[in-house]
Amino acid sequence: MAHINSNYLNIKESYLFSEVAKRANAYKAEHPEADVIRLGIGDVTRPLCPTVIDALHEGVDAMAATETFKGYGPEQGYDFIKESLKAYYAEKGVDLDKDEIFISDGAKSDLGNILDIFSKDNLVLVPDPVYPVYVDTNTMDGREIAYLEANEANGFLPMPNYDIKADLIYLCSPNNPTGAVYNREQLAEWVKYANDNNSVIFFDAAYECFVSDPSLPRSIYEIEGAKTCAIEFCSFSKTAGFTGTRCGYTVVPFDLIRDDCVVNKFWLRRQTTKFNGVSYITQKGAAAVFTEEGKKQIAENIDYYKQNAKTITETLDRLGIWYCGGKHSPYIWFKCPDNMGSWEFFDALLEKANVVGTPGEGFGENGKGYFRLTSFSTHENTIEAMKRFEKAFSK
Amino acid sequence: MAHINSNYLNIKESYLFSEVAKRANAYKAEHPEADVIRLGIGDVTRPLCPTVIDALHEGVDAMAATETFKGYGPEQGYDFIKESLKAYYAEKGVDLDKDEIFISDGAKSDLGNILDIFSKDNLVLVPDPVYPVYVDTNTMDGREIAYLEANEANGFLPMPNYDIKADLIYLCSPNNPTGAVYNREQLAEWVKYANDNNSVIFFDAAYECFVSDPSLPRSIYEIEGAKTCAIEFCSFSKTAGFTGTRCGYTVVPFDLIRDDCVVNKFWLRRQTTKFNGVSYITQKGAAAVFTEEGKKQIAENIDYYKQNAKTITETLDRLGIWYCGGKHSPYIWFKCPDNMGSWEFFDALLEKANVVGTPGEGFGENGKGYFRLTSFSTHENTIEAMKRFEKAFSK
Repeated sequence: MAHINSNYLNIKESYLFSEVAKRANAYKAEHPEADVIRLGIGDVTRPLCPTVIDALHEGVDAMAATETFKGYGPEQGYDFIKESLKAYYAEKGVDLDKDEIFISDGAKSDLGNILDIFSKDNLVLVPDPVYPVYVDTNTMDGREIAYLEANEANGFLPMPNYDIKADLIYLCSPNNPTGAVYNREQLAEWVKYANDNNSVIFFDAAYECFVSDPSLPRSIYEIEGAKTCAIEFCSFSKTAGFTGTRCGYTVVPFDLIRDDCVVNKFWLRRQTTKFNGVSYITQKGAAAVFTEEGKKQIAENIDYYKQNAKTITETLDRLGIWYCGGKHSPYIWFKCPDNMGSWEFFDALLEKANVVGTPGEGFGENGKGYFRLTSFSTHENTIEAMKRFEKAFSK
Repeated sequence: MAHINSNYLNIKESYLFSEVAKRANAYKAEHPEADVIRLGIGDVTRPLCPTVIDALHEGVDAMAATETFKGYGPEQGYDFIKESLKAYYAEKGVDLDKDEIFISDGAKSDLGNILDIFSKDNLVLVPDPVYPVYVDTNTMDGREIAYLEANEANGFLPMPNYDIKADLIYLCSPNNPTGAVYNREQLAEWVKYANDNNSVIFFDAAYECFVSDPSLPRSIYEIEGAKTCAIEFCSFSKTAGFTGTRCGYTVVPFDLIRDDCVVNKFWLRRQTTKFNGVSYITQKGAAAVFTEEGKKQIAENIDYYKQNAKTITETLDRLGIWYCGGKHSPYIWFKCPDNMGSWEFFDALLEKANVVGTPGEGFGENGKGYFRLTSFSTHENTIEAMKRFEKAFSK
């Protein structure tokens, strides 16, 4: 008699995005003439940049001839892209060995899969509000989860509590959903805590490319001591619009040792056994992101989204609404006006301004009374949406 | 203090392919003039077919313009490719719902990941010799493994033993490494066993496209009752040369229920939480395999490899060497001449014929004294290699 993994029965169903869609569609059905603008979307909308497109075509052409055809590649990624990433980290002052870098089909996959190499009896520490995948993947494994309170008082950047002896710690900076960014000193406190407790930090850097202040860390390895306590996850999704093209990378330093085992070797073993590498074509496209031309082109896309973020934060500034994010992040997280609840404000924004966003309480208890807007729409729609927002909620 | 998953310490290091490479390279270094031919390779060598190349280019072009750009797709795959696969199964007389089909980045990933949704205390049944991934992925989870004896007496097609109450059963047909194929009656016995015991069969159909005898099953769902006891894994790797392009699919029928849970929903939950779907570009290319033109072109490639298999089996026939596989499989598995051991024969073949193959004992205890050759080389090299083989080992 085969038995299922009963931990799956403990996963809370998230109705967040389906409920958002349901309410938006219902409104649209009742008001077919309404021009509803969606600023809730967490997906990029701008096409891949020309340099990446060219490289993808080259990759496809290589597959068309016997001489250049690529079969199985290294599970951990081709050297050409690992070398590009090594150079990308060097620009941030981080020196990595290329074999500390693993190419994957996306940060989401690796953030879940990394748990394979850790024991089930580790205590997990997760911020609230949070990207739901951290909680769900650990629930699937039956691990105990403690929550870090992120709130207005700490700027949604919770700091270590030495009373909790956490084993595995999730940090996401710039944060999804709040857009908040840890500074160097704050991250150094986390690194100290992790080294003191022999914990491991899972650092989700998926939004690092939105950081424009050079004093803010874009990699946890910019902090001294991080290589003995942190694994970093990153992605081409938001950097270069790869949400539908699928490529990410994970850094597991050689100096990270737990139970006398080199964690890098465990991850290599996991990947060579349960993964077969990313498409050669995709890796060709992703490597092009790091050419001079590629860097220039992706910067234009990121600037485009940041202009939208500015449109949103300037409106909130004028209205005197508390928010975080938006400066170094595509996400803007704000307190609902007039002490409304998240869903109450969702309905009000939809009815009064025909704008769809995401209720903060969908990301955790501490998201109650907060709301998330994203900068991934067009300039035109973002400007129009925020005009309506301002009109609807000005005093 | 973070702890690692100590089950990883129980994985046996496989030195098979590194030892093969080491011995071949040493020989080459000592005999630089030798024209060494490699028939050990398990990877395809022929380029992607033109129809697939065109579709991949189209996919890339779609990513270049805002109007056609694709961001996050459905984790379980786009409907267009699931509909193509539904039609492909219909050709085999198998009626599937499109939501029973999940698109993945390859069978290897899913064969490992499927274990996430099953309890650790299931007893696993694995044939010996076997593709090492089945054993390693279960060892990583700490599951107990029992072995099915595959040998010359049963044609390397072991049948159910009702004394063992197995929960999870791996069957691979056409088999890697032996090339043996279960017939309908044999597979029906396995389906009966699994339904009788409420076990789940993991059916690895990665080599199904090599089956040319219409009386042999290419999908386990051709067997009545399989939908209540089997999950099928398949891939474009060997069908269409996607080993470096990465696309596979997994079928989880709605009728498969264990512990009162619909296993399909568990897998959907696993995939939406820990996976973000396959690249749109790749899915476009894979779907082109099922066009009329695509089918014709991939058939030519498969025929090319089968011609090599025939070259190999005809030589073995002339030498009177026992073998299986090669008819409906790219693999030929034979008894080493003169009762040599696997590695002894490896060295003899390399020295006498300058041909590299794979020692059977690398796939398990029952592989001792056996040897694997593959049909993925060129016609010219395969013909030359088998000429030398025949000369070296004829009586």
